[in-house]
Amino acid sequence: MFYHEPKLQYTVRVDKPNPQFARLLQQAIGGIEGEMRVCLQYLFQAWGNRGPAKYRDMLLETGTEEISHIEMLCTAVALNLEGAKGDLIDRVVSENPIVENIMWGMDPRHYLSAGLAAMASDANRVPFNGSWIVGSGNLASDMYANVMAESTGRALATRLWESTDDPGMKDMLSFLIARDTMHQNQWLAVLEEIGGPTGVHPIPNSFPADQQKEEFAYTFFSTNVNRPAAPDARWASGSSIDGKGEFSFMHSQPMGEEPKLAPPIPSAYAQTDQMKDKGSSHQ
Amino acid sequence: MFYHEPKLQYTVRVDKPNPQFARLLQQAIGGIEGEMRVCLQYLFQAWGNRGPAKYRDMLLETGTEEISHIEMLCTAVALNLEGAKGDLIDRVVSENPIVENIMWGMDPRHYLSAGLAAMASDANRVPFNGSWIVGSGNLASDMYANVMAESTGRALATRLWESTDDPGMKDMLSFLIARDTMHQNQWLAVLEEIGGPTGVHPIPNSFPADQQKEEFAYTFFSTNVNRPAAPDARWASGSSIDGKGEFSFMHSQPMGEEPKLAPPIPSAYAQTDQMKDKGSSHQ
Amino acid sequence: MFYHEPKLQYTVRVDKPNPQFARLLQQAIGGIEGEMRVCLQYLFQAWGNRGPAKYRDMLLETGTEEISHIEMLCTAVALNLEGAKGDLIDRVVSENPIVENIMWGMDPRHYLSAGLAAMASDANRVPFNGSWIVGSGNLASDMYANVMAESTGRALATRLWESTDDPGMKDMLSFLIARDTMHQNQWLAVLEEIGGPTGVHPIPNSFPADQQKEEFAYTFFSTNVNRPAAPDARWASGSSIDGKGEFSFMHSQPMGEEPKLAPPIPSAYAQTDQMKDKGSSHQ
Amino acid sequence: MFYHEPKLQYTVRVDKPNPQFARLLQQAIGGIEGEMRVCLQYLFQAWGNRGPAKYRDMLLETGTEEISHIEMLCTAVALNLEGAKGDLIDRVVSENPIVENIMWGMDPRHYLSAGLAAMASDANRVPFNGSWIVGSGNLASDMYANVMAESTGRALATRLWESTDDPGMKDMLSFLIARDTMHQNQWLAVLEEIGGPTGVHPIPNSFPADQQKEEFAYTFFSTNVNRPAAPDARWASGSSIDGKGEFSFMHSQPMGEEPKLAPPIPSAYAQTDQMKDKGSSHQ
Amino acid sequence: MFYHEPKLQYTVRVDKPNPQFARLLQQAIGGIEGEMRVCLQYLFQAWGNRGPAKYRDMLLETGTEEISHIEMLCTAVALNLEGAKGDLIDRVVSENPIVENIMWGMDPRHYLSAGLAAMASDANRVPFNGSWIVGSGNLASDMYANVMAESTGRALATRLWESTDDPGMKDMLSFLIARDTMHQNQWLAVLEEIGGPTGVHPIPNSFPADQQKEEFAYTFFSTNVNRPAAPDARWASGSSIDGKGEFSFMHSQPMGEEPKLAPPIPSAYAQTDQMKDKGSSHQ
Amino acid sequence: MFYHEPKLQYTVRVDKPNPQFARLLQQAIGGIEGEMRVCLQYLFQAWGNRGPAKYRDMLLETGTEEISHIEMLCTAVALNLEGAKGDLIDRVVSENPIVENIMWGMDPRHYLSAGLAAMASDANRVPFNGSWIVGSGNLASDMYANVMAESTGRALATRLWESTDDPGMKDMLSFLIARDTMHQNQWLAVLEEIGGPTGVHPIPNSFPADQQKEEFAYTFFSTNVNRPAAPDARWASGSSIDGKGEFSFMHSQPMGEEPKLAPPIPSAYAQTDQMKDKGSSHQ
Repeated sequence: MFYHEPKLQYTVRVDKPNPQFARLLQQAIGGIEGEMRVCLQYLFQAWGNRGPAKYRDMLLETGTEEISHIEMLCTAVALNLEGAKGDLIDRVVSENPIVENIMWGMDPRHYLSAGLAAMASDANRVPFNGSWIVGSGNLASDMYANVMAESTGRALATRLWESTDDPGMKDMLSFLIARDTMHQNQWLAVLEEIGGPTGVHPIPNSFPADQQKEEFAYTFFSTNVNRPAAPDARWASGSSIDGKGEFSFMHSQPMGEEPKLAPPIPSAYAQTDQMKDKGSSHQ
Repeated sequence: MFYHEPKLQYTVRVDKPNPQFARLLQQAIGGIEGEMRVCLQYLFQAWGNRGPAKYRDMLLETGTEEISHIEMLCTAVALNLEGAKGDLIDRVVSENPIVENIMWGMDPRHYLSAGLAAMASDANRVPFNGSWIVGSGNLASDMYANVMAESTGRALATRLWESTDDPGMKDMLSFLIARDTMHQNQWLAVLEEIGGPTGVHPIPNSFPADQQKEEFAYTFFSTNVNRPAAPDARWASGSSIDGKGEFSFMHSQPMGEEPKLAPPIPSAYAQTDQMKDKGSSHQ
Repeated sequence: MFYHEPKLQYTVRVDKPNPQFARLLQQAIGGIEGEMRVCLQYLFQAWGNRGPAKYRDMLLETGTEEISHIEMLCTAVALNLEGAKGDLIDRVVSENPIVENIMWGMDPRHYLSAGLAAMASDANRVPFNGSWIVGSGNLASDMYANVMAESTGRALATRLWESTDDPGMKDMLSFLIARDTMHQNQWLAVLEEIGGPTGVHPIPNSFPADQQKEEFAYTFFSTNVNRPAAPDARWASGSSIDGKGEFSFMHSQPMGEEPKLAPPIPSAYAQTDQMKDKGSSHQ
Repeated sequence: MFYHEPKLQYTVRVDKPNPQFARLLQQAIGGIEGEMRVCLQYLFQAWGNRGPAKYRDMLLETGTEEISHIEMLCTAVALNLEGAKGDLIDRVVSENPIVENIMWGMDPRHYLSAGLAAMASDANRVPFNGSWIVGSGNLASDMYANVMAESTGRALATRLWESTDDPGMKDMLSFLIARDTMHQNQWLAVLEEIGGPTGVHPIPNSFPADQQKEEFAYTFFSTNVNRPAAPDARWASGSSIDGKGEFSFMHSQPMGEEPKLAPPIPSAYAQTDQMKDKGSSHQ
Repeated sequence: MFYHEPKLQYTVRVDKPNPQFARLLQQAIGGIEGEMRVCLQYLFQAWGNRGPAKYRDMLLETGTEEISHIEMLCTAVALNLEGAKGDLIDRVVSENPIVENIMWGMDPRHYLSAGLAAMASDANRVPFNGSWIVGSGNLASDMYANVMAESTGRALATRLWESTDDPGMKDMLSFLIARDTMHQNQWLAVLEEIGGPTGVHPIPNSFPADQQKEEFAYTFFSTNVNRPAAPDARWASGSSIDGKGEFSFMHSQPMGEEPKLAPPIPSAYAQTDQMKDKGSSHQ
Repeated sequence: MFYHEPKLQYTVRVDKPNPQFARLLQQAIGGIEGEMRVCLQYLFQAWGNRGPAKYRDMLLETGTEEISHIEMLCTAVALNLEGAKGDLIDRVVSENPIVENIMWGMDPRHYLSAGLAAMASDANRVPFNGSWIVGSGNLASDMYANVMAESTGRALATRLWESTDDPGMKDMLSFLIARDTMHQNQWLAVLEEIGGPTGVHPIPNSFPADQQKEEFAYTFFSTNVNRPAAPDARWASGSSIDGKGEFSFMHSQPMGEEPKLAPPIPSAYAQTDQMKDKGSSHQ
């Protein structure tokens, strides 16, 4: 169950409102690297957690923190959009400030659809998509999904930091960058606890090893027809990273036959030419 | 540049065609954990690679291998859909086999839209979506994205393996499961080469450390109002996983103020009640 | 800023786990009538609120409550999916329980992608979509959006209630149905406070009335060529509902001309036949 | 069944073609607040209408009128895009007019994909999405969906009106703004006819009142941990708007227990660490 | 401008209501091969038509006819869903008819979201998507898009015809199949009028022929590394179909160099390892 | 099975890097007219091909060639994005180059999400969508889908060619334009082989002709209420294009009745007013 209070987790201050920067910030709200994704990803992982229970608790804690991050970023967007007023919208009589503003990269829907507020979509107004929320039921692959989300998220935050010289915005972003550092470490701590790379991999580690085609489990297949990869690359020789095999090298070659499909069934109404045939084989 | 040959990378044999299993296999083709995603993810990462060049080569190799996996799975779907013929479609006169087949969980579009062939979508026919393809320009976050994709992909393959007792299908899946093992190891090998967790993290490691709010970079924020997380959890005390800080613990509390937004601008046509107000503050 | 505690807002009890019902419950999580939509809609409206501040507070309160509803429903899904175990999955050796389960309407991705947990999508696994979240910057249209969301949401909840005879599930749904009653009333209370239909409409009420084509603002246009609507219908005669006009009736007829577009420009590379022409007019 | 004639419902005149304004107009065609949505929403509600029949007729009438609005807006887009010719595209030899045009906020796909014509998508070229079309089978929730669609649609139209000083475009928009006034009134007239707030609410009003948890149907839950909402707010005391209860106030508190999920089943291939556990409880 | 009348274009009669068939019919409403797509495609092509004007008229006529087809199919869906009542929903007390119905392949959202009416989506409830509507500004490519839409649409209709033995439904479908025949012929008639294959191709035929790399315009590139295509295939020798070249055959080989990208710029925050490098070349 | 080599199929040279043109090129990568679509469309058609086998081979060949085109375009995007460095990003200290760049039409996600590399989406960053990939199981409709894809694709390429004066980019595009010429001819060659318009149409040609309502198969229905189409148009008189009928002309008129739906079932919880009614008829 959830509570709130009206204050923000961290100060959001915009010194020079900038509607173009508001558009960029949207990537950190509703983009695939954004806070809606990590927030909901951690919460859904928590709500589906089947133990150990301490990880459920941790996922709930950090999922809840991320709601506060969405709140901060939405506030930052709304404050930056106030920049659409001072410079541009006051000139309504003589010219067309909104179109001018859009000419300069403002998202038109920030005005047309939201009346100068944040929306649940990315920097190009592609809507947030629930398919991005990963919760696999396997703790290790979920933790990798979380490390990856915080890594692309931190990369995004550093590029946003680079894209502004507003001191308030830089301050807020350096807070969020720090939190992404913590969260990367947090998910790595879980991976360490449940065995480190050697015990964790291959994911899922509960699948019986003798049921995979072991001979292909540590072999690098090279598809390059005229400059084969170096056979002594780290991924082509030596012990595998999961400690359970030896890397080897193989030139790609077919181990299967050319596929033969049956001819079309009448009720699928292919062309008559197709139905005279004997299916997709060459005989 | 790319070439092909008509044979398959590995044998695809369906002993007992099963249109329901064809639907499940679609998840491994066009689902977020599927082969279209990893194939295109590796290729786009390769095409955008700005060095070191050896990783570009490796990404191209494995991206190319994945096209062969899509081909195998599409063949497997087509062969399983032939099961819609023998048992059911022959009975057309007396009853309604397609509707019956769909009653039993076959995807109707396998018949209606594709005439019994694979499609570029998932097990519920949600189309493949390009937003799933991650290439961030940061090698470490891309490698984590790849480990994660192969981990959820291998979990999916093991569940598909579990969902069939067709010997041919089990054989094909145990080959794909082995390749996922290799690919997990491969991306981990890159992470090892570029520094292991300590050197790789926090991602991106090129952002100047003194520009993040260091005091919040290794602190666990607990949002739980009545049962705080254990302060001695691995992620709340001791050395951080990236080796660059010390974990600490803090009860969540606001560090910012309640947000104050300006009143609506006239040209956004809020309700007149809103415009009488002085904005969103409580004074 | 947000907090949580590990207990649920209201009891979630599943007496007879049912993976098919788990699929139906997904509509109330990630469907357009579901809790993710109302939760995020209220929070985004709050974060963009430009006054009066008391409505911002109320939106935050109820948005926060809705997170707890998502949590309850996700828990209910996870518990219902445990039904996939007892009856079906134990029979793995002799038959194929997952395919059997899917034959009976279970969502295959609940097993394949989530390992028996809730996901951020609807009853047909179409992902939650951020475009559904409405926050227009106009308080009255937002309140109507909220009444509408709670109305379709309550209709959904009553149909889910009808679809189960599990006492635990019926109890949880009758709680959610009650909350939807409250929330409908809540948004109506705001509409009452800011003027009721007469003062609120037409929305937005801040647009200068003399700038709309007043002669068409209260006229019903009938497009029916052979059985015109009754001219004395409530919407074709008498005082308008907003109290600002008189309804009237008119047979649809064109008031504009046939459109004439310029011929294609050369750089758009139409067919040569098109470019010989003088544009889309009939002269 | 449907007919057409080649003239437009109302004059569409563009005095100063403006490709940037063409982009903005797209929001009124294929955006969530746009005419494709209301058109299809009214038609689908009509086609699914199960009585009273007079509402089916009215929905058909207005749904048909809305096709004429899409036609007007598409014509307006095509005429505005002719502005891409005179000023810019003639300068092809010496410079790059399309890129220049796009620099100024024109949608590149208006040229690249459509050869200077309207498209079925919004101002950011996100495609029209069928999920926006609401027809619930409950007349009252559908009428609220329609009021809401016309309210956000009228807000959009007023903002478009504000974004142009082209007399022809302002004239067309003031016609559409007037029609939105009429349509808001029309759906409100239906709500009046079927009972007004008191009889209509809670929606659906056919669900047996004694089957909802009555004690929670008129209680405001406050989630604010440090500044509770005013207990005398209109939504926390006094008679409820639907006239069927009394508002009351309650501090949010959990009424359910912490969820306990069963441990992972073996066939879902969680990590081995997860499967040693006893599920997600703390005992 | 548009009109309607309350009668249907053609009789819709359902002799044996079947909720499963209602689901299949949805593919013909909101699927990519469905009537919403052709309807809107023809109308958008008409509204963007820049001449010759007679094609604009024809597109408007047939686009208008297609609205009537959507209406017929939506009526058919609603009538088929009445089958959910008699057999199943009456048994509410003793068992769970909706879940049972869904077990048999009914779309749950037909009940949960629409109260037994058609929706704007496909057979798997993936929403109609505006990106499917093609209007390129080039008449020939639009006509091919229309032939293709009517071809996949007619294939779909024949498969639906095959999927039912309801005489009323078969009658309606054989009407729609006939209309698809007409519409295929209609778009082919336009292609004949504007030049037939020889004059129409390559599309667009207004692009200056000497600006394409003529030496590659009629050469079949074979990528097959071990069984080259027959050099005397129709597409590898003889006169080209557009009558403007001679087909020839070539083994695929690279004509470009290995790409060399510059190293990452600092402000994109790649990993430090990447930035030491000299870009993606092998030197 | 697939192979690659590190060289490109054709030279990609960018003389004047231009981040705005990089955005336009994305339409040719991940847009509906782009190379990802044709590549995957040909491969999926090949993998589902049920004969004649020679068409499977040809589809595989050209599908493989298209991967090389995606590679060329992604390389072109990456090289054009290097233009974001020289002119703009160097000026980081004194001004804000990224926002400036975005002001001029660069896609912000090229920097924020991809670190200056191509992405799997279109010119407005709408993600590639698997629903665009058509493989119907009917060879003729697939060939029309392919002609149409190459026609809109070639139109796009000519417009891109028009949008740049960079000699390297013009050279690459004139190569791609030539390949589109070849591919259009190739699919037309298949249509010629399997019968030309007369034998191919109506598609599917395997559906028994006597099962369509023959009397409506060659009749043009005119919906225009005040200016009927010319009865001697090519599509209203004379022999049909498929050679199997005679065109005729008819004024649209209803041949069906007004639909009558049953009243709502109780378990769908319509409003009580609706349930008193006798369904949607006028009696």
